[in-house]
Amino acid sequence: MNPRTSTRPRVYSTLLLAIEVLMVTSSLSGSAFSQDLNTPYVRIAELEVDPAQLESFKAAIVAVGEASVRVEPGCLVLHAVAEKANPSRVRVFEVYRDKDAYQAHLTTGHFKKFRAVTADIVKSRRLIDMIPLSLAAKAS
Amino acid sequence: MNPRTSTRPRVYSTLLLAIEVLMVTSSLSGSAFSQDLNTPYVRIAELEVDPAQLESFKAAIVAVGEASVRVEPGCLVLHAVAEKANPSRVRVFEVYRDKDAYQAHLTTGHFKKFRAVTADIVKSRRLIDMIPLSLAAKAS
Repeated sequence: MNPRTSTRPRVYSTLLLAIEVLMVTSSLSGSAFSQDLNTPYVRIAELEVDPAQLESFKAAIVAVGEASVRVEPGCLVLHAVAEKANPSRVRVFEVYRDKDAYQAHLTTGHFKKFRAVTADIVKSRRLIDMIPLSLAAKAS
Repeated sequence: MNPRTSTRPRVYSTLLLAIEVLMVTSSLSGSAFSQDLNTPYVRIAELEVDPAQLESFKAAIVAVGEASVRVEPGCLVLHAVAEKANPSRVRVFEVYRDKDAYQAHLTTGHFKKFRAVTADIVKSRRLIDMIPLSLAAKAS
């Protein structure tokens, strides 16, 4: 909890993320979204982590998430969740202002530390580029 | 953009979500997180949608996301994203204050309307209960 803001009334509005303009285009294989260049850059990482080191992984992802949204002007969201039925399966949901902000994230000390600390914890990693449809969140 | 707030300086703090207490317990099959009762309730829905109706689906999910975080005190996040390489594959990432808040969400008019409007658009639905590890987001 941030003591400066925890007593403010909650504002029921959505996060101030730019809502991207999506167009539906048709192709031979069916319809597909195409994306405006200025849309947020969103990716999901599907990780398989060592079940014996879940607590270390959690500490590392909490640290990199907190630092990323605090220090980086373009890192908007870094959520990480584990499947309740199989906690070694982790999904990381990241939103950046744009692709440049994501590239900047990769150069930060806190990200490099996260990758070093978790190098032996993360057994596999699948990265999926996503198109944002709705990024609704209660304002803090 | 909300004109009332778009000119405010961005506050670099994290969303005021309660950070759950997670404990690592051991079992014969390895370690697993167990969850505090008061943690946020998080679920991911993996949807397969009709590619010919993506635009209609997007309109419906934008509407339910906006209404949910604005009207429901316990709906904190409703993000929906589509795979860039296969936009008919949609992931919905939802965070509620607790499980009761999620149950309340299911009874709302906007949710029921979303399910009705998308009944013929959503071809399959896989719901996965998740344990939150990090819910970092830049404050709006």
